[in-house]
Amino acid sequence: MSPITRLQPETRLCGATIHNGLVYLAGQVTEDPSLEIEGQMADILRQVDALLAEAGTDKSHLLSVQLFLADMDDLEGMNRAWDHWLDRDNKPARATVEARLADPAWRVELTGIAAIP
Amino acid sequence: MSPITRLQPETRLCGATIHNGLVYLAGQVTEDPSLEIEGQMADILRQVDALLAEAGTDKSHLLSVQLFLADMDDLEGMNRAWDHWLDRDNKPARATVEARLADPAWRVELTGIAAIP
Amino acid sequence: MSPITRLQPETRLCGATIHNGLVYLAGQVTEDPSLEIEGQMADILRQVDALLAEAGTDKSHLLSVQLFLADMDDLEGMNRAWDHWLDRDNKPARATVEARLADPAWRVELTGIAAIP
Repeated sequence: MSPITRLQPETRLCGATIHNGLVYLAGQVTEDPSLEIEGQMADILRQVDALLAEAGTDKSHLLSVQLFLADMDDLEGMNRAWDHWLDRDNKPARATVEARLADPAWRVELTGIAAIP
Repeated sequence: MSPITRLQPETRLCGATIHNGLVYLAGQVTEDPSLEIEGQMADILRQVDALLAEAGTDKSHLLSVQLFLADMDDLEGMNRAWDHWLDRDNKPARATVEARLADPAWRVELTGIAAIP
Repeated sequence: MSPITRLQPETRLCGATIHNGLVYLAGQVTEDPSLEIEGQMADILRQVDALLAEAGTDKSHLLSVQLFLADMDDLEGMNRAWDHWLDRDNKPARATVEARLADPAWRVELTGIAAIP
């Protein structure tokens, strides 16, 4: 079988798992919950870049992204950070819904799947 | 590596991505938000059929579906459209939860993964 | 193409689908909604173990898990069952958000993807 590689292990989950040419991201949240929505999303996208780099890939290989916004009114602010970061020639599938998150200071959580070239 | 093919690109996402024999659907919502729940779901399933056809597959190859209902009270109406559309010999894994969606007129959003034969 | 195998078919979905060395879990909920959160989560994890065994794999091969809590205040209780069950040498990526579920007695729903060795 293909081996499973695990990145950034925490107490009860890993930041990402790698298997058979795909990387599965855990829910990514900001490391600085004092930030407003655009700052939190930019911070998350930096973490995604770092995880993808550690997995040997990058944002141009994202296949699917799911976004959970604590408040859908933050959609515009979240999208500003997304639009700034996005590789417009290589856009993933994406779904965005509202959901209360584990820490009330978190505004957005991102999960997704990327291919490894 | 397997190449990534992108279907129905929009400003900040693609309607679907294809990689290594799988198609990853973006969150699909109705094109006619004036419809009630059963009509919205039927409209979404028509879009899913079209995306899957463009990817060279069909609903009998759906592996996993996630449904986000703006109001869980719409579960029965959503399921009427689902039951009418479903290939009963080839049912996917499915999860359905409630979540506020980006447009308050949207009643349901669908995402999922399908195999390409 | 790789064939698709379907486990535990129900009226409108399968409990899991298998394709190309991966198993895709449907949303798993408790079979005993009278249980409180920790009991419901332990019950769900027993069902996950059974589904994974039927697919020829186990919890050490989980790649990605998504958890929907009906009330985020149940996070600690859910995590007690998770921590008791988790293979600490083989932790999946995980995302946990709050979402109202189809039955108001359900406290948590789990979905995910596992590799088959």
